[in-house]
Amino acid sequence: MPRISIIPSFELESGDVLNNITVGYERWGTLNDTGDNVIVVGHSLTSSPNAQSWWSGCVGPGKALDTDKYFVVCANVIGSPYGTVSPISVNPSTGKAYGLSLPQATIRDTVRLHKVLLDRLGVQKIAFAIGGSMGGMQVLEWAQYGSDYIRGMVPIAVGARHSSWCIGWSEAQRQAIYADPDWNDGMYDLNAPPTSGLAAARMMAMVSYRSFESFEAKFGRDKNQHGSFQTATWLQHHGDKLVNRFDPSCYVYLTRLMDTHDISHDGFTYQEVLASLDQHALVIGIRSDILYPLQEQEELYSTLPQANLEILEGPHGHDSFLIDQDELNDLVLHWRQQQIDPLIDSSLEHELDCCACT
Amino acid sequence: MPRISIIPSFELESGDVLNNITVGYERWGTLNDTGDNVIVVGHSLTSSPNAQSWWSGCVGPGKALDTDKYFVVCANVIGSPYGTVSPISVNPSTGKAYGLSLPQATIRDTVRLHKVLLDRLGVQKIAFAIGGSMGGMQVLEWAQYGSDYIRGMVPIAVGARHSSWCIGWSEAQRQAIYADPDWNDGMYDLNAPPTSGLAAARMMAMVSYRSFESFEAKFGRDKNQHGSFQTATWLQHHGDKLVNRFDPSCYVYLTRLMDTHDISHDGFTYQEVLASLDQHALVIGIRSDILYPLQEQEELYSTLPQANLEILEGPHGHDSFLIDQDELNDLVLHWRQQQIDPLIDSSLEHELDCCACT
Repeated sequence: MPRISIIPSFELESGDVLNNITVGYERWGTLNDTGDNVIVVGHSLTSSPNAQSWWSGCVGPGKALDTDKYFVVCANVIGSPYGTVSPISVNPSTGKAYGLSLPQATIRDTVRLHKVLLDRLGVQKIAFAIGGSMGGMQVLEWAQYGSDYIRGMVPIAVGARHSSWCIGWSEAQRQAIYADPDWNDGMYDLNAPPTSGLAAARMMAMVSYRSFESFEAKFGRDKNQHGSFQTATWLQHHGDKLVNRFDPSCYVYLTRLMDTHDISHDGFTYQEVLASLDQHALVIGIRSDILYPLQEQEELYSTLPQANLEILEGPHGHDSFLIDQDELNDLVLHWRQQQIDPLIDSSLEHELDCCACT
Repeated sequence: MPRISIIPSFELESGDVLNNITVGYERWGTLNDTGDNVIVVGHSLTSSPNAQSWWSGCVGPGKALDTDKYFVVCANVIGSPYGTVSPISVNPSTGKAYGLSLPQATIRDTVRLHKVLLDRLGVQKIAFAIGGSMGGMQVLEWAQYGSDYIRGMVPIAVGARHSSWCIGWSEAQRQAIYADPDWNDGMYDLNAPPTSGLAAARMMAMVSYRSFESFEAKFGRDKNQHGSFQTATWLQHHGDKLVNRFDPSCYVYLTRLMDTHDISHDGFTYQEVLASLDQHALVIGIRSDILYPLQEQEELYSTLPQANLEILEGPHGHDSFLIDQDELNDLVLHWRQQQIDPLIDSSLEHELDCCACT
């Protein structure tokens, strides 16, 4: 069930202050007495906080994100239209939607905001944070709260900073939105958004999320009854689908948010920051990912002091973390049982004792 | 120097007939008496027939495309705005530009049209055809005239048919153009073309032509003085640059032309057609190419009966065939000297004798 928390005041890294903003989130399972059986899930670009819907193979009783043993929380990032403050939220000082006048937040800002939420929920420690793509960026920011607070992390299909390659893809997609006449420099009527531009951006993104091999296997050069390539028809379908559930200014804002991703800070290089993150880490890469290529995860693995590396070998490209869920679930479950469960089992046992008493 | 030839009537594979159409081309060197010292160059999507400008490392005296020994011809494809009939040509039956009412040609059509041109120029045999990307598609069509007519071929960074992956990239780029208000279903005023859409499409294409590694090395996360990522600035520059030299309807038409690429015909599979092409072939692949991945060239190599395979190992992605010209020149020069020069040396010697007489 979608939930909302209202934060009276929140200062961004830029110094801009947002007042009375919402944070949307979903939660599953029960927080234990010691407040440390917590799994934080980071969602990706266009996903909602309903992780159970888009990660049904990984979230649930007995699964890697075990809702019987753990309290699983997924909060919406700043700029996304699923409950947290975004360009389509009302600016309290004008009574109108922010649009792109919403100050640009960073991945770090969004994790700091989510920390405020977790504090409210009574979370004392995070067992591990997990996420793919933009979700993985959040994981690497969470880890910087230190191993006393967050015991493990599972960054998937991500690097320590958004690469210039990914910034290039982002920019090309934004330009497709800007080219739509209804864009109007982001000050469009919310009843007439630039849907053609957003659909074009989404189609571009959908190709980049997959791979040569998966497209060959799925479509080949097959045509539909109207003589169009199935590839094109499928892309148009996905473009239209996103238009019905996402806002173009949020898309622009969030791609810029991803472009801010860089764990370096305060004079420390990203390598130095990585080397300081001594949590148990399970780094997961995807062999066929063209956007966040395996070399980025290999770098995480070789620089993090306590990391394992696992690789999804399927052909589905970047989206594999949303497609090959059974394989992903097995990898994370095994790692969790080895590295994380022992750290919180005493509190779990304590809870079981209590249950036996009643 | 750009040249034009006028063809009174030409029938496309579709059955449509084009009347009084132009073919633009450029040529270097001198045709020998036997008319067989001919190298045909296929140009890529947005290139002009001026191969000496974009392949200066490969075209010239002593180079792989040796303009002292060979007669080098590069003709403009149907649909490109550099001299051959295209959407911006005048339709003789209306007196107005064709726009997208120009019947859709195929790669095969364009090579058939270029054959008419070569016949006019007195060409008896082609020593070899060479080209990368869309140029490579033309090479594979040329080869089907048989080894009595065309003795060698150098397809670069291409496959036997346009993959669904590449069709996907094409379609996403077209959609970016369609999203521009000035597109007007292709019936736009030529003085007010949909430049924003074309620029967005070009930016998308420019990313896909490069690689993660080359972007990292070139830009990293550097920003310019206005706080924009260098990656984005560079892409915008390339978007703007194309707008000044290319027409949006030609871009749409040509990407559709590439999507037609499929050497299968008349009930023969593309593998059967490949197996029938017994010319000397030098297949060149690019390790870092995400668009036309190496496996496509490995398939050409393993199915063509007389092929060598060479690989450009640099980081520059699909564009490597335009960037790593010295390396490319060495590969093609060596192959030409081994496989092609001996076949026409008798006629070359004959010419030298003639020169000695005068």
